[in-house]
Amino acid sequence: MPLNEFDIINQYFNRAIAPESAVIKGIGDDGAIVSPTVGKQLVMSVDTMVAGCHFPENTSPFNIGSRALCTSLSDLAAMGAKPLWFTLGLTLPESYNEWLEQFSAGLFSIADRYHCELIGGDITRGPLTITIQVHGEVFPDTILRRDGAVAGDQVFVTGPLGDGAAALAALQNEISISLEDHHYLSKRFYSPEPQIIAGQTIAALAHSAIDISDGLLADAAHIAKASGVAIVLHIDRIPTAKALKNVDRERRLRWLLTGGDDYQLLFTVAAKRVGELADLISQKHIHAYCIGEVRADNSGQYHVRCFDQGQRYHIGKCHESGYQHFTT
Amino acid sequence: MPLNEFDIINQYFNRAIAPESAVIKGIGDDGAIVSPTVGKQLVMSVDTMVAGCHFPENTSPFNIGSRALCTSLSDLAAMGAKPLWFTLGLTLPESYNEWLEQFSAGLFSIADRYHCELIGGDITRGPLTITIQVHGEVFPDTILRRDGAVAGDQVFVTGPLGDGAAALAALQNEISISLEDHHYLSKRFYSPEPQIIAGQTIAALAHSAIDISDGLLADAAHIAKASGVAIVLHIDRIPTAKALKNVDRERRLRWLLTGGDDYQLLFTVAAKRVGELADLISQKHIHAYCIGEVRADNSGQYHVRCFDQGQRYHIGKCHESGYQHFTT
Repeated sequence: MPLNEFDIINQYFNRAIAPESAVIKGIGDDGAIVSPTVGKQLVMSVDTMVAGCHFPENTSPFNIGSRALCTSLSDLAAMGAKPLWFTLGLTLPESYNEWLEQFSAGLFSIADRYHCELIGGDITRGPLTITIQVHGEVFPDTILRRDGAVAGDQVFVTGPLGDGAAALAALQNEISISLEDHHYLSKRFYSPEPQIIAGQTIAALAHSAIDISDGLLADAAHIAKASGVAIVLHIDRIPTAKALKNVDRERRLRWLLTGGDDYQLLFTVAAKRVGELADLISQKHIHAYCIGEVRADNSGQYHVRCFDQGQRYHIGKCHESGYQHFTT
Repeated sequence: MPLNEFDIINQYFNRAIAPESAVIKGIGDDGAIVSPTVGKQLVMSVDTMVAGCHFPENTSPFNIGSRALCTSLSDLAAMGAKPLWFTLGLTLPESYNEWLEQFSAGLFSIADRYHCELIGGDITRGPLTITIQVHGEVFPDTILRRDGAVAGDQVFVTGPLGDGAAALAALQNEISISLEDHHYLSKRFYSPEPQIIAGQTIAALAHSAIDISDGLLADAAHIAKASGVAIVLHIDRIPTAKALKNVDRERRLRWLLTGGDDYQLLFTVAAKRVGELADLISQKHIHAYCIGEVRADNSGQYHVRCFDQGQRYHIGKCHESGYQHFTT
C-alpha cells in the first residue's frame, strides 16, 4: 500500500537531532528552527537534480541520494564553509518502500559522513526531482568567494579532472575500460567527494575559489569575470586519474576542460604564500596541484587562456563552455 | 532563441539587494552569504509545487509565481517569523522569455510586498516544478510552534475557511458562481495572503499555531498530536466568505473542514488572555474568530471533535483527513 506523506517522513527521514547541534526544531512543524552561531555567517546553496537530466533514469536510489547530497555539499566546500543542515524537496512518481529505503540510506550515508543534519523538507507527487538546500557556517573574514582573485595569484585544483565526464561515458557504455576503472569512475560519479576539509583548510589563505561543476574553463571564467582578471591554465599540468590514461588525448582534454561534474575545488593563492599552502597540504592531508596563474586583465574580456607544453592551446568552438541546461 | 541558465538568472532573477539587509552576497557565487541577527533564531521552510498537482497545467506564469511564494511565506507566518530571504529551485521544460518574464513578475510582486529577498537558486530543465525555501527570523521566546497548546486554550482562525477548495472547484468549472465571486476566489487561490502580520502580532500571546494548508481537521489534529491535547471545534462558528453562501451546506462544510489551501492561521490562546488578544486585534487591524477550545486528552487519541449548534457533528469517512499526496 502506498504511504502518505506523513508516513514517508516519519519512516524514512525523521531522525533524532544530535543533542549538541544548533537545531532547535527539525522535522515536524511549519518550519525548522535553528540558532546560528554568534559571529559567524551562514552560507546557503540550493541544487535541483532531475531524472534523465542529471542522472540516468535507471540510477539506483541509493546512488541518487548520495550524489544529490555530495554535489550540494560541494558548494559549501567552495565557500570554505562547515556543513550544518540541509533540507530536501522530493518529488516522486510513486512511493515505493524499497525506493525510499535505498534513497534515504544513500542520503544519510553522506549526511552522517559530513555531520550535516536533515531538518526539513517537502514530499510531492510528480516526475522524479530532488532539490537539496545545504547550509553551512563560516567566519566572515575567511570566506571563499569567486571575486577575490588578483594578478600574481597561482591557480590550484584539489584533484584530478575529467572524472565526471569519463564516468558518464563509462556508465553509458561509450568507452571500454577495466572493471577496476569502472568501479573508480562509478564511485566518483555517485559519491563525488565534496572538498569540505580542503575548503576549510585553504579558507584563510586563498583569494578565491569555486567548485568545478560546469567544467574547468567555464568555472575558471566565473572567477575571472567576478574578479576582473585573466587566467592562464597549463593543461599539461592538470592532474588526471589513471582510469583516463587510455582514453585518446583529444577526448580526455575535452573532458577535463569542459566536462564538469568533477567537484574538485579551483582556487587561487598569492604567489608569495604558496609555501604556506604547501605546509597546510602536508599537515592536513589534502591535495592541491598548481595548474596556472592569474594575470591582470587589460581587455575587459576576462579571458581564460590555455597553454600546452608552453605553447598556446586553442580550444575548438565545441570546447568553449561547460555544460549548460537550455543551451541548444 | 532559448536562453542559457546564466542569462535567465541575470535577466529575470538577479536584482540588487537592499543595502540595509543582512544579505552579504546574494546570487552569483557558489552559495549565498547572510549575516543572521544576533539573539534571534532562524526559521526555514521548503515547499515544492508540481504542475498539474498543485496548480492546473494552464495556470498563468504570473499566478504560478505569486502562489508559490505566498504559500511558502504562510509557513513563516505560522511560526510568527519575519520574512527575510528565499531561494528558488525552478525546473522548466523550455525557457520561453514570456513565461519567465511573467513568472518572475508574479514572484517579485509578492517578494516586494513582504520584503523577502531572492538570494539564490538553481534552474534546471525538466517537468515544471517550483521549489521555494523561505527564511525568517524570530525572537526565541515568542516563536509559535505546534506543540504548545494546553487544556483551557481557546481556538482561533484568522479568516474564512473553505476558499481554497471552493476556488479550485470554481477554476475547474464545477460550480456556477457570479463573476465577482469568481474574481474573489481566484485571487484567494493565486495570491492567498500569508498571515505574516497576524503571526507576528499573536506570537507573544498564542500557545500554538499552524497554517491551514492540509485542511482544518488535519491541521487541528497536528496541533492536538504535537501538544498531547484534544480539540473541540464549533463548526457553526467558522467564518466563511460570501462567495460560498450559495453552495449547498454539505459541500461547504466538507470544503471548510477538509479542503485545505486556505492559508489562514489556526492558533490557541489561554482563555484568561483572550482580552489581550481582542486588544491586539483592534490595534493591529488583524482578524481572529474563536471557533473552539482545547481540552485535556485522556485517551491518548488526540481527538479533534466537531459540534454543530451544540450537537456532536459526526464527520463521514470521506471527510476525515485533509488532502495528502500519495494517499489512494
